[in-house]
Amino acid sequence: MNEAAKVLAAERSSVNELAAPLVTRLIGRADEWRLDVQRTDAGVTIVDAGINTRGSVAAGLAVGEICMGGLGRVRLASGGEGGSEGSWPTWVEVASSQPVLACLASQYAGWSLSASKEEGGGRKFFSLGSGPARALACREPLFEELGYRDRVGPAVLVLEVDRAPPPVVIDKILRDCGLEPSQLTLVLTPTTSLAGSTQVVARVLEVALHKAHELGFALGDIVDGSARAPLPAPSPDAGVAMGRTNDAILYGGQVHLTVAGDDEAARELAHKLPSSTSRDYGRSFADIFRDYEYDFYRIDGALFAPAEVWVSSLVSGRTWHAGKLDMGLLRRLWLDEA
Amino acid sequence: MNEAAKVLAAERSSVNELAAPLVTRLIGRADEWRLDVQRTDAGVTIVDAGINTRGSVAAGLAVGEICMGGLGRVRLASGGEGGSEGSWPTWVEVASSQPVLACLASQYAGWSLSASKEEGGGRKFFSLGSGPARALACREPLFEELGYRDRVGPAVLVLEVDRAPPPVVIDKILRDCGLEPSQLTLVLTPTTSLAGSTQVVARVLEVALHKAHELGFALGDIVDGSARAPLPAPSPDAGVAMGRTNDAILYGGQVHLTVAGDDEAARELAHKLPSSTSRDYGRSFADIFRDYEYDFYRIDGALFAPAEVWVSSLVSGRTWHAGKLDMGLLRRLWLDEA
Amino acid sequence: MNEAAKVLAAERSSVNELAAPLVTRLIGRADEWRLDVQRTDAGVTIVDAGINTRGSVAAGLAVGEICMGGLGRVRLASGGEGGSEGSWPTWVEVASSQPVLACLASQYAGWSLSASKEEGGGRKFFSLGSGPARALACREPLFEELGYRDRVGPAVLVLEVDRAPPPVVIDKILRDCGLEPSQLTLVLTPTTSLAGSTQVVARVLEVALHKAHELGFALGDIVDGSARAPLPAPSPDAGVAMGRTNDAILYGGQVHLTVAGDDEAARELAHKLPSSTSRDYGRSFADIFRDYEYDFYRIDGALFAPAEVWVSSLVSGRTWHAGKLDMGLLRRLWLDEA
Repeated sequence: MNEAAKVLAAERSSVNELAAPLVTRLIGRADEWRLDVQRTDAGVTIVDAGINTRGSVAAGLAVGEICMGGLGRVRLASGGEGGSEGSWPTWVEVASSQPVLACLASQYAGWSLSASKEEGGGRKFFSLGSGPARALACREPLFEELGYRDRVGPAVLVLEVDRAPPPVVIDKILRDCGLEPSQLTLVLTPTTSLAGSTQVVARVLEVALHKAHELGFALGDIVDGSARAPLPAPSPDAGVAMGRTNDAILYGGQVHLTVAGDDEAARELAHKLPSSTSRDYGRSFADIFRDYEYDFYRIDGALFAPAEVWVSSLVSGRTWHAGKLDMGLLRRLWLDEA
Repeated sequence: MNEAAKVLAAERSSVNELAAPLVTRLIGRADEWRLDVQRTDAGVTIVDAGINTRGSVAAGLAVGEICMGGLGRVRLASGGEGGSEGSWPTWVEVASSQPVLACLASQYAGWSLSASKEEGGGRKFFSLGSGPARALACREPLFEELGYRDRVGPAVLVLEVDRAPPPVVIDKILRDCGLEPSQLTLVLTPTTSLAGSTQVVARVLEVALHKAHELGFALGDIVDGSARAPLPAPSPDAGVAMGRTNDAILYGGQVHLTVAGDDEAARELAHKLPSSTSRDYGRSFADIFRDYEYDFYRIDGALFAPAEVWVSSLVSGRTWHAGKLDMGLLRRLWLDEA
Repeated sequence: MNEAAKVLAAERSSVNELAAPLVTRLIGRADEWRLDVQRTDAGVTIVDAGINTRGSVAAGLAVGEICMGGLGRVRLASGGEGGSEGSWPTWVEVASSQPVLACLASQYAGWSLSASKEEGGGRKFFSLGSGPARALACREPLFEELGYRDRVGPAVLVLEVDRAPPPVVIDKILRDCGLEPSQLTLVLTPTTSLAGSTQVVARVLEVALHKAHELGFALGDIVDGSARAPLPAPSPDAGVAMGRTNDAILYGGQVHLTVAGDDEAARELAHKLPSSTSRDYGRSFADIFRDYEYDFYRIDGALFAPAEVWVSSLVSGRTWHAGKLDMGLLRRLWLDEA
C-alpha cells in the first residue's frame, strides 16, 4: 500500500460509529448543557441545542467533536494575558490526525437540504447538513474524490437551523442514508446560540482544509492538523452571528497543517492559504456582505480561510508561515469598554 | 417554562451525584497524588490532601471539580511565552455551563462549621465548608434564593483546614445533611498545601459569581462562564498562603461571563465587577489585611473579584470589557530571581 | 513515615500497570493515528508509530503518557497570539505529580540495548530504551538510587528507532524484565516521524529532572512538575530531527518544579538548571554537534536542560526564576516565510 493510499486507509474508521459515544454523552448531559432532547413519532432523536433552550459553550465543543466524526479534539482555552492589544479571553482549539476525513468527509456543511414553502409547513426550509451522516448519504461530488463511504449504523447529522426540519427533509435524510428512524439523531444548533457559535468556530481547521481543496492541493497529502480561533459572543441577529463566526476565523484563525508531497506544493499552499490573499480581506464579513448587496456568491472565495497558517512538510521537514492575525479588528467589532 | 426558570431547571442535576465519580477517582489516585485516605470508626471517609501528606497540584484540580459538583471543568495550563513582563508559568483554567449551581450552590465556602475549645479537643475549630454537601444541609440563606436542594445520597464536603474536624463537627454535618456516616466523604485541603492553593485559585469563577450576587445581578441571568488565574506556590505560612491565592484572583484573574437580561444590567455588571473598582485595589492582600489590623471585615468587599472581566449578553450579543491584570505586582510578590 | 520516604512511597504505583490502559487505547486507535500493529511469532506486540507508517502527533502525545508510566499528562496546546516574535503555533504541555517516578524511573531513555552486525541481521542495532519496562529490568544504576522496582505484568518499552529490534534484543528485553512474550509491547518511534518528535519534546520535564539529578539535587525533594515546549516539524533527516527536538527544549522549554528541602538548595537548582548556564548555549544543537565533530561526549552536559525554569519551595514558599526562551532562534531555525 503506498503512502497516499495509507492516508485514506483510515476509511475503515466509521465516522458515525466513532461519533456515537459522543452523541450518547451529549444527550446524557442534556440538563447540564441546557439541551432539549425529543423523539419524533417515527423515532428520530432531535437534540435542540439552542432554539427553544439556551444551550451552552460546552455543548458546542461536544457538537464540534461530533461533527468531526470522533476524529478530532475540540476544547476551550483561555487566552491572552494582560489586556494586551491581541488579548481575547476565550478560544476554541481543534486538532486532528485525520483532518481530511474529520473535516471534509464529516464536518463540512455541504449537504444541501431544502423543502418548499408547502412542504415546510408554510415556510421554506433550507439547511446545509454537516457531520457524520453526510458520509452515508454521499450526495456531494466531494465523496467520490475522497473515496470514502461510511457503513450504515447509528448516525448523526448537525443542522445550523432555527427550527426543526419538516418531515419531508427528515424522510429524505433517512432515505439517502439508508437509515431506520431510530438510528438517526439530528442536532440543531442555530448560529445565534452559544452552542451554534462555538461549533462554527470549531470549523477553523475545516475552513483551511476546504480552501486547500479549492486550491487544488492533493487531499491525500494532508496528514495532520491543529488550529485555534477566538470565540465571539453569539448575536441574536442571525446575520451578525454568522458574520462574527466568519470573522473569528478570517481574522483570528491560526492553522498548522502537516503535509506530504513536494516542497513547492507545500510552500504554495502556505502562500495561498491565508485570508489575506483575498481582495476582500480587511473589513468585517458583515461589511463585505452588505457591500455585495447580500449576494454571497460575489464574495471572493479566497477570503474563507484562516488568518495565519503554518504548513510543515514531512518530506523535507521545512515549515512555511504566512498571514497574520488582526485581533485589533476583532476587538473593535466585538467589544465595548464597560 | 420561561427562560429564567430554565436556567435553574438544572436543579434536577444532583451536585453530589455528579461529584461521586470524581471522589472515587480522587481516592483511586491517592498514591499518585499523595493523599492519605482514612475511615473514622463511624465510617466517614476522610481524604487528607495536604496535612500529614504533601498532596499535589493534580489533586487540587480534582478537588476543584469536586467543589463544583461535577458541573465545571478545572485544568492546568502552561502560560506565558518568553519571559515577558506578564509571564507566569502555571495557570488554572475553569469553565462551567452551570456557573450558578457549580459555584454558588456548591463551590462557595459558605457553610460555617465550628466547635468550642472543649468540643474541639482542646483547640477551637472553625471552617467554612464548601462543595456539594452544602446543598444537602442548605444552612445558608443563599439556598432559598437559589431554590436548589440536592437529593440525599453519597455526598462530599471540602474543608480548608489544617486538622481533621472534631467528632462534634462531623456529627453536625451528618445531621444537617441527613446522611449516614458511610455516605459522607470529607476532603481536607489546607491552603498551605499544593492541593489547597490549587483548589482556592480554581475559585476564580466563583469569586466573580459571588460578587455578581453582591451587586444584585439576577443570578438566573448568568448562563455560562470561563475563567483563569495564575497558580502561586503555596506558603507554609497560612496567612501568606491565603494572601497569595487572593492576589492570584484579584490581580491575575480573568473571567468571561455570558448573561441574559437587559444590556444596562450586563454593562453595569462588567463595569462594577473587577477588583480595580475597590478602594483597596493596588496592594497585596497581605498588606491590606495588615493595614486593617487583621480585621477581615474592614476590607472593602468590592475587592474580592477577578482583575479583568468580559460580560457577553445573549440578548443583544454585545460584550463589555473592564479591568486589567497586574502581573507585574504578582511577579514582585511571588518571584525571586535565582 | 518521614516526608522524604513519602515522596517515593508511590513506588506502590506500578508504572507498567498504569500504562497498560494507555497502551490498549493506543492500539485501539491504530487506524486513526496511523499506527501499524503486529505480533511477532513469539507473541510480542510491536507498535510501529512512524517507520512503515506516518503516525501522528496524537500518537506521540499518547506515547509520551505511556513513557511516563501513566503518572503524567501530555497534551497539545495552540500558542502564540498574533504573529509576535515569540509566536509558535503548536506546543506540548506536560505535568506530573510524581515527576521522579514518571520521568526518571520510566520516561528517561537510559536502557542501552544493542546488537552486533551479525546479531542484527547484517546491520548493527543500537537504541536507548525508555518507558515503564525499564523499571522491570532495572539495568541502570539509577534504579538503586530511586529504590524503585516494578512488579511483573503486562509491560511496555519505547524505542526511538528506524527499524524493529532484532530477535536477540527482544529476547534480552524479555529476559531482563522477566516477561513472557505475550506480556510485552514495544513501541517504535523514529525521531523523523510526527509521533517520534512529539514524544521527544514531551521529555521537557524529564530533561529538567535529569539535570537536577546531575547537579546532585536530592531526588526525594522533587514533589511536583509542569512544563511545556514548542513542537517543531519532524525532519526526514535523523540528525536534523534530533537537533530540532533538542533545540525545542534548550531554547523553548519552560519548566516549573516544586521542591522540598532547604532554600539554598532550591535557589541553586533554579540558578544552575537552565540551558543558558552552559558554555555551548546560544547556537543550534546541529551547529554545536558539528563543531564538536559529531562527538556527543564533547558537548557540555549542562546544555541539556530547559531554557527557562521556576523552582518553588514547599518549605519556604519562595519561587526562584532563571533563564529565558529564545524563540527568535527557533523561528530562524524552523521557519520559512511563504
